[in-house]
Amino acid sequence: MRAVVYQGPFSVAVEEVPDPEIKHPNDVIVKITSSCICGSDLHMYEGRTAAEPGIVFGHENMGVIEDVGSAVKTLSVGDRVVMPFNVGCGFCKNCQRGFTGFCLTVNPGFAGGAYGYVAMGPWVGGQAEYIQVPYADFNCLPLPSGDAFEWDFSLLADIFPTGYHGAELADVSPGESVAVWGAGPVGLMATYSCIIRGAAEVYTIDHVQERLDMAGDIGGIPINFDVGDPVEQIRDMRGGDGVDKTIDAVGYQAAAQGSSAAGGEQTEIPNVVLNQMIDLINPTGIMGIPGLYVPSDPGGVDEGAKRGSLAINFGKLFEKGLKLGTGQCNVKQYNAYLRDLIISGKATPSFVVSHEVPLDDAVDAYHKFDQRIDGYTKVILKP
Amino acid sequence: MRAVVYQGPFSVAVEEVPDPEIKHPNDVIVKITSSCICGSDLHMYEGRTAAEPGIVFGHENMGVIEDVGSAVKTLSVGDRVVMPFNVGCGFCKNCQRGFTGFCLTVNPGFAGGAYGYVAMGPWVGGQAEYIQVPYADFNCLPLPSGDAFEWDFSLLADIFPTGYHGAELADVSPGESVAVWGAGPVGLMATYSCIIRGAAEVYTIDHVQERLDMAGDIGGIPINFDVGDPVEQIRDMRGGDGVDKTIDAVGYQAAAQGSSAAGGEQTEIPNVVLNQMIDLINPTGIMGIPGLYVPSDPGGVDEGAKRGSLAINFGKLFEKGLKLGTGQCNVKQYNAYLRDLIISGKATPSFVVSHEVPLDDAVDAYHKFDQRIDGYTKVILKP
Amino acid sequence: MRAVVYQGPFSVAVEEVPDPEIKHPNDVIVKITSSCICGSDLHMYEGRTAAEPGIVFGHENMGVIEDVGSAVKTLSVGDRVVMPFNVGCGFCKNCQRGFTGFCLTVNPGFAGGAYGYVAMGPWVGGQAEYIQVPYADFNCLPLPSGDAFEWDFSLLADIFPTGYHGAELADVSPGESVAVWGAGPVGLMATYSCIIRGAAEVYTIDHVQERLDMAGDIGGIPINFDVGDPVEQIRDMRGGDGVDKTIDAVGYQAAAQGSSAAGGEQTEIPNVVLNQMIDLINPTGIMGIPGLYVPSDPGGVDEGAKRGSLAINFGKLFEKGLKLGTGQCNVKQYNAYLRDLIISGKATPSFVVSHEVPLDDAVDAYHKFDQRIDGYTKVILKP
Amino acid sequence: MRAVVYQGPFSVAVEEVPDPEIKHPNDVIVKITSSCICGSDLHMYEGRTAAEPGIVFGHENMGVIEDVGSAVKTLSVGDRVVMPFNVGCGFCKNCQRGFTGFCLTVNPGFAGGAYGYVAMGPWVGGQAEYIQVPYADFNCLPLPSGDAFEWDFSLLADIFPTGYHGAELADVSPGESVAVWGAGPVGLMATYSCIIRGAAEVYTIDHVQERLDMAGDIGGIPINFDVGDPVEQIRDMRGGDGVDKTIDAVGYQAAAQGSSAAGGEQTEIPNVVLNQMIDLINPTGIMGIPGLYVPSDPGGVDEGAKRGSLAINFGKLFEKGLKLGTGQCNVKQYNAYLRDLIISGKATPSFVVSHEVPLDDAVDAYHKFDQRIDGYTKVILKP
Repeated sequence: MRAVVYQGPFSVAVEEVPDPEIKHPNDVIVKITSSCICGSDLHMYEGRTAAEPGIVFGHENMGVIEDVGSAVKTLSVGDRVVMPFNVGCGFCKNCQRGFTGFCLTVNPGFAGGAYGYVAMGPWVGGQAEYIQVPYADFNCLPLPSGDAFEWDFSLLADIFPTGYHGAELADVSPGESVAVWGAGPVGLMATYSCIIRGAAEVYTIDHVQERLDMAGDIGGIPINFDVGDPVEQIRDMRGGDGVDKTIDAVGYQAAAQGSSAAGGEQTEIPNVVLNQMIDLINPTGIMGIPGLYVPSDPGGVDEGAKRGSLAINFGKLFEKGLKLGTGQCNVKQYNAYLRDLIISGKATPSFVVSHEVPLDDAVDAYHKFDQRIDGYTKVILKP
Repeated sequence: MRAVVYQGPFSVAVEEVPDPEIKHPNDVIVKITSSCICGSDLHMYEGRTAAEPGIVFGHENMGVIEDVGSAVKTLSVGDRVVMPFNVGCGFCKNCQRGFTGFCLTVNPGFAGGAYGYVAMGPWVGGQAEYIQVPYADFNCLPLPSGDAFEWDFSLLADIFPTGYHGAELADVSPGESVAVWGAGPVGLMATYSCIIRGAAEVYTIDHVQERLDMAGDIGGIPINFDVGDPVEQIRDMRGGDGVDKTIDAVGYQAAAQGSSAAGGEQTEIPNVVLNQMIDLINPTGIMGIPGLYVPSDPGGVDEGAKRGSLAINFGKLFEKGLKLGTGQCNVKQYNAYLRDLIISGKATPSFVVSHEVPLDDAVDAYHKFDQRIDGYTKVILKP
Repeated sequence: MRAVVYQGPFSVAVEEVPDPEIKHPNDVIVKITSSCICGSDLHMYEGRTAAEPGIVFGHENMGVIEDVGSAVKTLSVGDRVVMPFNVGCGFCKNCQRGFTGFCLTVNPGFAGGAYGYVAMGPWVGGQAEYIQVPYADFNCLPLPSGDAFEWDFSLLADIFPTGYHGAELADVSPGESVAVWGAGPVGLMATYSCIIRGAAEVYTIDHVQERLDMAGDIGGIPINFDVGDPVEQIRDMRGGDGVDKTIDAVGYQAAAQGSSAAGGEQTEIPNVVLNQMIDLINPTGIMGIPGLYVPSDPGGVDEGAKRGSLAINFGKLFEKGLKLGTGQCNVKQYNAYLRDLIISGKATPSFVVSHEVPLDDAVDAYHKFDQRIDGYTKVILKP
Repeated sequence: MRAVVYQGPFSVAVEEVPDPEIKHPNDVIVKITSSCICGSDLHMYEGRTAAEPGIVFGHENMGVIEDVGSAVKTLSVGDRVVMPFNVGCGFCKNCQRGFTGFCLTVNPGFAGGAYGYVAMGPWVGGQAEYIQVPYADFNCLPLPSGDAFEWDFSLLADIFPTGYHGAELADVSPGESVAVWGAGPVGLMATYSCIIRGAAEVYTIDHVQERLDMAGDIGGIPINFDVGDPVEQIRDMRGGDGVDKTIDAVGYQAAAQGSSAAGGEQTEIPNVVLNQMIDLINPTGIMGIPGLYVPSDPGGVDEGAKRGSLAINFGKLFEKGLKLGTGQCNVKQYNAYLRDLIISGKATPSFVVSHEVPLDDAVDAYHKFDQRIDGYTKVILKP
């Protein structure tokens, strides 16, 4: 079958690779109908990880079941399903408690596995024609048959739940004020999730105008950090007050104010979002941090950053009595509920999708998405 | 000053009563700008309680501070405020834990106090020109000055928080399916609150068409129980499935199917809602019960009902592993958040207000509201 | 193999039955080392259920793995394990959320399955030499090898978690006062669990003196309801105050005050515990109800009881703003934590075990346990 | 009256100061019977804060009510009470939600007030004969009259709740494994609280042998970090596994391994505990941080530390999906429950008290406590 294969920094190819097979009685094979490119694919694409050439990308996968292992109970050939980007077993200490992003079974020696991602286990990615899904009863979310909501459902694999995870980590509740750093796909999904959860005010901080416009369209209040310190801007709008909750949908590759936003080099300040959050949030607040931080970043801006050590204003954090929650999203905790919001018409996350292209155009799509040109915000590959 | 005074069953009068005064250093006097008639006022009005003639009605009160006691810290003359219907002290074991509807201080020998209500303490009602508010720093919610959102804010005294309380008791969460019994003011507020909290599907059950229409207008799915068993109707719409959560916004004066809904006699079945909820809800569900049940009802339909004993399908409730929460709303847990939703434009509960009338027209308003004629759904009295 | 087989009311036999086999790739076969008789086995034994002759009893099972299906990942022959009495799949909507007592997969058409129990699915009981365990990675809790803590660990299958479940349903927290109805094995485990969770006062209500003595030995305060109304006794001890939380470890076969406790007929009042709990608990309290109530009880004391309908003082329950939680225990939510308490020496639930007898003596053991003679409190069968 | 007055670094005096008076109708005056010296008093004593000479120390205060303001409702002259170290109003946004350590009323411009502490508002300390207590109905916890449990109750002002707060921030639950950094009074109270809450294993890390012995005496597992890396020691004891939860009861003045523990200079490494916690804890864990971190520390070891900025291994923290909670204890959330544990005999925190001395010996007591000589672990001053 054809699949997107990593070649090295800033290079992918669409190549023939072996078809996946049922390897374990709990497996299914899914014929991919949609597989999205994720911002975290760009971490590998840009050479900011230890990914080796040859890896098949793709962890945001949906499709139709093509083959079913002998132990699978609830799934049949022809069922339409979407899979969480994280692979879970369903029975380890972490999966059992809902922490399906930290499965202890599927990636031995580590807590958490995923498809098509460096260091996340042997699971081949889904930017391809087919994918092998282990522990299929656990990992496949059933969808209504047909092709309705295809874009919306495809976002259930990762970014809609991941944005929602930010709101959950911050325990965003009706009537609260929230600030979300980042208006990329995850930041927009976090903004959207806060609104779905009934937040009164959601400030969304970025410096890409089209993204800020989208945040405004869904009910957020856009804050452009190239215009000035976002903490001051928001305090000014609130008569000096801070906010109840904050969400970091940016992570360690945070851009400095005024640095180029489109295509070119930008200055990274890996702790800037964390410290701005500590500065803006009101005492007793909670900070949700779905944005990625890594323990090893060879391309980090300084010695600390290279080993994931950041200077945090911890004295202020303590004085304010803050709480924070981090980590990759446990997709399976949310995806059925978010699916039902889509089906009932109460959520339409596909507003964030900018392009749908054939799988064979993946090389061009990766390039444009990475450079943020031609409005590439969120791309779906169609085999 | 002039005030609405209870005369006996089906009779109120607008009479002169003594002006309230600062009696305690933590008191304030509020000049009433709006005071709503509540469905629970009708329990007294209809003679279904032990209320004695002479009581001044009114527990849904807002206005402007007229006088301030010597110990009051955060309030000044001229401040616009709305008061929870329940009176709390802020420091007893229950208030301290957020259970402000069960204050142990303000109504000695009982857990909970309110303005203008039988057996709820010495607090004179606010369907009047002025009201005394004890523990004013605790009991007054500050509002923006002026007269914007007057109707919306007036609903913060009771029915918006009470409806929201139903959703909170049932822990209604994004993506869930909910059934709400009752489309009176509290039922509509419960429906609205479920939608604000991100429910995927909200079924609202009543047999008054105008109320059902309002439920539909805000995003609910109206179910007319005069047309047929609401449990069957909802299961049919859901392919046999039940719902995740249920809310009882009806209480003990539940009407039998097909009984007259407007004005005349209707057959009461006090346990019908509870048992329908047990029937419809899925195993592991939670039932939120803000609808009133009373331990003594002289007008009850049978001996059990007279002393608040109801036949509940408890075997089925246990088999399904259900949870339930009950009780009067702890308004102060929610009112600031709901106020901020109103200010930000994300909630407009005033859609439920049908009439605003001068205080001096209270006699007519009580009559029409009780008889549910001329579309009297929710009435605000203006002194 | 030999197994305990139900013959009809008040009759079991130890008979030869077919050996269990691996039927599904996720199965294991466990060689039983200990299998307890449960109070709920007596419901069947006494003919109070629809159980048909031929059923093999036994849902409190532990042992050593004898054979492993081809899809099993984490278990090997020779591993020592204990199984929750409820059978779960690990991936359905309920298992996924931790409600493993309400699995939607293992007992089609019903929420929840168990070994060796009427209407709980096809799973053969473990009062036998071997047992088939489905979804073994999910349903087997690993134990340290050897034979240490055999009695304690065997109680992890049901009664220790079930007692703990009562405390969890009531959200018993450090420093609280609790009343537990019932000092049978589950009531004692509930009392013990409240103490483990840091309750300040735990009142345990029964009328069997040896059981009350055991409650006192572990730090509870025994209340004999044959001596007088337990609500009054506890209020008297507390200066008129009620308690924060209550737990019903009795269920529908509740005995009337003064009725015979040992062996003979006793008068049942199926709603007595529920209404006493409502009476004793303080406003805002929570009632945990692990004691069994059933939707159909052919031997019920009246027409209501026969169909699981009980007269509940719901008006008082509402006035107090109470919450309650019910249902069979989701053993897998607790069993690993309770196992670790046993291993660390911080819990020794085996104090409740009165007898260990060979499997072949099961007929005598059932008889004595049912009659509560010779001190039969909790019996372990050894194949 | 006589009181302990700060003179400058390493110097206090017992001097005559004006008697406190009722200044507000909600005030009471309490005659002090016990007032403890707290480790955080030493921060001021050692000149590590901006405290100016003249401040009266003492925030761990209990005694008997001497005078009552006109608005006070529930307290009378002669009542025995203990006051949380933090002063709250009971009605601000933070107090209302239980965050009484972050009161917005009592220390204008800041979230949180306390008695006798720099920058915590105008509230005079209680290492004196009398103290003024504002919002007395809210701030006084009633105690049984007499002198029983005097030492235990005095610890309800701060260190017992503060240690408990660590366990609460980490959500320590029955059966879990926990590591507590620090075996000073707060660390011992945290260890004790974890055990009260039912933890299976509690590792307590320090390098003062007498403290470690006390941790062992109450059921903890002592780990001496002068012997070797505590993370390695604990992993070795657990077969390589980490722990479920961690608690930092040390804060920013953390000592380096092998530095002198008694009296002399020790090398501080302000981020050592935080990074060891991140290293030891298992993925999905929660870190409770009641140990003090400050936003400004003129005596800090480097430029970052001086402004409260610490290098945190945030990449690892994120990869593990950790949560953390910080901040000063909201004493009033816990003190009534902990009082009831003392009264019922289920908690005896006074094991940590090493000395009781007359108020007039405070100079000597401060010196010895600061130098940790003569076994000064926890000192109670008696006026």
